[in-house]
Amino acid sequence: MTVMTLTPHHLADALTALRWKRPLVHCLTNDVVSAVTANALLAAGAAPVMAHAPEEAAVIAARAGALLVNIGTLTRERVDVMAAAAQAATGAGAPWVLDPVGVGASPFRQGAAGWLSTLKPTILKGNAAEILTMATGEPAGRGVDAEEQNPRAVQDAATALARSLGCVVAVTGEADFITDGSASVTINNGDPLMGRITGSGCVAGALMAAMLGAGVAPLLAAAAALAAFGLAGERAAKGAPGPGTFQARLMDELASLSAEDLAAGARIA
Amino acid sequence: MTVMTLTPHHLADALTALRWKRPLVHCLTNDVVSAVTANALLAAGAAPVMAHAPEEAAVIAARAGALLVNIGTLTRERVDVMAAAAQAATGAGAPWVLDPVGVGASPFRQGAAGWLSTLKPTILKGNAAEILTMATGEPAGRGVDAEEQNPRAVQDAATALARSLGCVVAVTGEADFITDGSASVTINNGDPLMGRITGSGCVAGALMAAMLGAGVAPLLAAAAALAAFGLAGERAAKGAPGPGTFQARLMDELASLSAEDLAAGARIA
Amino acid sequence: MTVMTLTPHHLADALTALRWKRPLVHCLTNDVVSAVTANALLAAGAAPVMAHAPEEAAVIAARAGALLVNIGTLTRERVDVMAAAAQAATGAGAPWVLDPVGVGASPFRQGAAGWLSTLKPTILKGNAAEILTMATGEPAGRGVDAEEQNPRAVQDAATALARSLGCVVAVTGEADFITDGSASVTINNGDPLMGRITGSGCVAGALMAAMLGAGVAPLLAAAAALAAFGLAGERAAKGAPGPGTFQARLMDELASLSAEDLAAGARIA
Repeated sequence: MTVMTLTPHHLADALTALRWKRPLVHCLTNDVVSAVTANALLAAGAAPVMAHAPEEAAVIAARAGALLVNIGTLTRERVDVMAAAAQAATGAGAPWVLDPVGVGASPFRQGAAGWLSTLKPTILKGNAAEILTMATGEPAGRGVDAEEQNPRAVQDAATALARSLGCVVAVTGEADFITDGSASVTINNGDPLMGRITGSGCVAGALMAAMLGAGVAPLLAAAAALAAFGLAGERAAKGAPGPGTFQARLMDELASLSAEDLAAGARIA
Repeated sequence: MTVMTLTPHHLADALTALRWKRPLVHCLTNDVVSAVTANALLAAGAAPVMAHAPEEAAVIAARAGALLVNIGTLTRERVDVMAAAAQAATGAGAPWVLDPVGVGASPFRQGAAGWLSTLKPTILKGNAAEILTMATGEPAGRGVDAEEQNPRAVQDAATALARSLGCVVAVTGEADFITDGSASVTINNGDPLMGRITGSGCVAGALMAAMLGAGVAPLLAAAAALAAFGLAGERAAKGAPGPGTFQARLMDELASLSAEDLAAGARIA
Repeated sequence: MTVMTLTPHHLADALTALRWKRPLVHCLTNDVVSAVTANALLAAGAAPVMAHAPEEAAVIAARAGALLVNIGTLTRERVDVMAAAAQAATGAGAPWVLDPVGVGASPFRQGAAGWLSTLKPTILKGNAAEILTMATGEPAGRGVDAEEQNPRAVQDAATALARSLGCVVAVTGEADFITDGSASVTINNGDPLMGRITGSGCVAGALMAAMLGAGVAPLLAAAAALAAFGLAGERAAKGAPGPGTFQARLMDELASLSAEDLAAGARIA
């Protein structure tokens, strides 16, 4: 088993790459978070494009630097568009991120996420309940909620899933666990206020796509996105009177976070 | 006629129940306000889930603590989903709120809202123009706008509507009027800045659903939601330089508002 | 060639008209920006209505003061709705704005925007890449991005386009260029932070529709909207720690901007 050692400086270099390359990130994401996702990508230094018509989604996915597929508010037609875009991205050599939001909420969602996961995502990202559902086929947690899960069981499931799908799996939570099936890394950045606003998990997936679009390798892309976003969250939370002000400050911090800040503040275990 | 006397302490207890139970609220709401609705539910202490695919909406509605049906950006397909979800909620014994946004704007919207109102909502919530349109079948006001209406006529219409539909009717405005057809209560909390941001009315409906999902009785649920949200608005408005900053602060205040704050600040007539 | 000379006082009078008339603006806009668009219209003093069902869009467009058509997240069904609404608006004598967001991103989008542009928009608004694509039929720029374009070539293309379509064409950028095919005006207000949040261009189009809805003539409407929004952006940027806080302040400034402020701060070349 090869173990890759990531240092804060690797994460900092990934952020520098993102700012330098300013990748175009095609987002097929859910209705609730589209605005905050676009704003977060702009703040971080990427360029978002949202387009979900069957007539253009694959064309745009093939041209973008990376693709995000987030099933938060799925419809049957949108699943087809996501699959076509994912295949177009893969065909064009563009990386893509799958975020199976609330996959345990219904058989429909589970079926769609299962199908999409076979289309060779570069990174599969979810909370503990979502990753367990993806790994076991058994719904875990209630809808989009991450209930308490056995951390060891989650890590084992993520590792097995990474091997069987041949992709990086990132499990978000108080500690984020990222694995490619052999090497793994844990990121400890973040703040509880991130769970008090909608879209934190969805934005994390979008930032992973942005890192991939900047040419960052998958395991590092997931780690750098989570560390940068988590650190921005920590800084935004300082003195924030509540979740509304926090959300505005989170965008401020994402924009002002420097590579040096990340090298100094990333907490890798 | 039984008259129920609500005190600020009843409202405070309702807020405590919401925080304690953290109900899952299924939102079938309009595109414009989905993000602020999710954020407001999270801030208040509930857990939002948005899902509108025909394949899963009824399944999720039956499992959630409460359902919100808001017709702000309606389509024909969405009406069918709303009806199926409302029936599933009712079948599962889960309460639901109907918010007929802009019902007077078109015959299409009026027809849909009329149909949905026959499916036994727990609370029907609207501004004066919307409630008058629902009660009389005659469009009142221009679209989503609440023009000046005769307050007495509105209260009579709301009372008659509550009786005929067998539900609680909540009329929002400078003073909020809530009736179950016999008992009624008026809430005087709120701030004019709430009318300068989109989604204030929609969020109020979502908070009513959250109160219902926490097991609070319908009349009290509507009153507690409006008092808590209105009081958060009053607090957020203090020193706010304008509607943008106000909106962020409103989420802060919704999150920090305590049961004691509500007991002290609720204005019930 | 008639040259119309606009002074800051003309712009100030347009803002006064908007505040006085409080026009109802029907927005057929993209999913990402619907909330910020509604909030900006409310902040500026207009009343937004969003409604895109085929069953009601034309009815509502015919009744509104003005219509906004923004193709940011287009679908085939939505194109039909937009066309029907544009025709209904024109039939009812109501002005409308076409914003061909990201028109160069796909042949589908280009075809739709081309068709819509033949339906007699009052103002066609876009960034340099979008206007060049509309004028030449050749995709320019990457998606929604405005790359560096030859300013003179863009102005010539805009002027020719205004003549051929018989409408006002507004090109947004560091300097905004507005032409009706003979007279033209340049607006120099704005701040780079406006490009770091999603929806700035879309909001500018909505504000143009609001000005039109208040009875302001097309060339002046476009100029007044861009000057007012740009000036609000300059004021909001002062001391803003980043794009998140900036976005909230931008709404504050849009709400508090007075006609006197605009007369003093508008930069017309």
